[in-house]
Amino acid sequence: MSTAEILTIGSELIEGLRVNTNATWLAKNLAAQGVQVTRITSVADDSTQIAKAVREAISRKTGLLIVTGGLGPTPDDKTLEAVGKAIGSELALDEKALKLVRESYSRARTRGLVKSERLTKARKKMAHLPKGASPLSNPVGAAPGVQLRCNETLIICMPGVPVEMQAIFDQHVKSTLAQIGGQKRATAEIIVKSGDESAIVPLFDKLARKFPTVEVRSYPSEDEVRIVLVSTNAGEVKAAKRMLSELLQETH
Amino acid sequence: MSTAEILTIGSELIEGLRVNTNATWLAKNLAAQGVQVTRITSVADDSTQIAKAVREAISRKTGLLIVTGGLGPTPDDKTLEAVGKAIGSELALDEKALKLVRESYSRARTRGLVKSERLTKARKKMAHLPKGASPLSNPVGAAPGVQLRCNETLIICMPGVPVEMQAIFDQHVKSTLAQIGGQKRATAEIIVKSGDESAIVPLFDKLARKFPTVEVRSYPSEDEVRIVLVSTNAGEVKAAKRMLSELLQETH
Repeated sequence: MSTAEILTIGSELIEGLRVNTNATWLAKNLAAQGVQVTRITSVADDSTQIAKAVREAISRKTGLLIVTGGLGPTPDDKTLEAVGKAIGSELALDEKALKLVRESYSRARTRGLVKSERLTKARKKMAHLPKGASPLSNPVGAAPGVQLRCNETLIICMPGVPVEMQAIFDQHVKSTLAQIGGQKRATAEIIVKSGDESAIVPLFDKLARKFPTVEVRSYPSEDEVRIVLVSTNAGEVKAAKRMLSELLQETH
Repeated sequence: MSTAEILTIGSELIEGLRVNTNATWLAKNLAAQGVQVTRITSVADDSTQIAKAVREAISRKTGLLIVTGGLGPTPDDKTLEAVGKAIGSELALDEKALKLVRESYSRARTRGLVKSERLTKARKKMAHLPKGASPLSNPVGAAPGVQLRCNETLIICMPGVPVEMQAIFDQHVKSTLAQIGGQKRATAEIIVKSGDESAIVPLFDKLARKFPTVEVRSYPSEDEVRIVLVSTNAGEVKAAKRMLSELLQETH
């Protein structure tokens, strides 16, 4: 199974002003393609912090690093500058990216969303990529996605606006994952009406002995415990669920 | 301003099955005490991954590392084992923690929430702490919080169940933060009805020249841009907001 890390950038996340739904959406969609996320990291809109987080992910030899946020036209959008710093590559105007930005403002002008389609300095900023990177067209916004490689890691940067991130993911990233993704995992779920998670532990031990490939997870809340069984072997998950149901009926 | 990192543990987070509201809640409450969160990390219920993330946070010399999740009685609760591994400290039965666990099951028995108050192996697991650690009483659940120090970093572990985490935070962590927390930051917000974030950039440049201590953040969505001004100097934030409002009236 291929592995990936997610790096979500934004001071609003790090200060608790916004829930990180982008990370959840990405993690779910990566898992659906058979890619195992090993870590999710959030840092502020701070070039030094972003570069550090990118370098650390590369040094952990993750196959894929998905980065969201900080690609826009404003000065607090620092992702490309920081990624360039992390991999030792300077920013330069990319002609393909500039064409994408131009087309996007031309479309926005036609639709009356912007007053002028002139490529101001702020707009051109979004077409300055680390050398060696390629832009990914953004079907619903101005900032292109950016794809580049460093050592063993494929880095894909996408805007933080959820609709833009999701559109770029669907149009460009999904097909890449279909190539690198591994075996998908099967899951099964059982809800136990009990506020006492500790009472179920002996059953987990029995289950682990019989089905060593099946990972057993337990999520307690006030009056129930949600048990999730996970394995790449769907048959084992099914058999483990049957055994656990029987054990629960005997003891509860 | 003191700095902190948050480490949220749970395979359900890393696979996108649950939104990480604990991280958001903590980040907001740390900021409210004048503590600046520099990084939020999530890893799976995997002892090696957790230990790695803890070691990395310590090596970044963060003053405070808040860890949530993985303190319960089931085998997929691996936080204390991993924290012990990270700091080179073995787990041992802690008498104070055992007393807290005993009292909690005694209360739960009285309220009819569990069948027996016997301290089974699974329940005792929650009282095995890394040597040198202290337990923090959990007013609403069985697993105590755990506090320990490694080099410059104070590590505080809390359960992942939100009500338990919040109760331990309010009872124990808040007062610690009041001692280490620094100056709080003032913010102001302006909403601009525009789908063109790039058009506002020249105003940001003017603002940055006049108020260099004020951080200007810009959050675009489809038809509006939310601008947030942040500084430890409340007067500057107020003056910057006034100037930005005037500039926006002139140009929009």
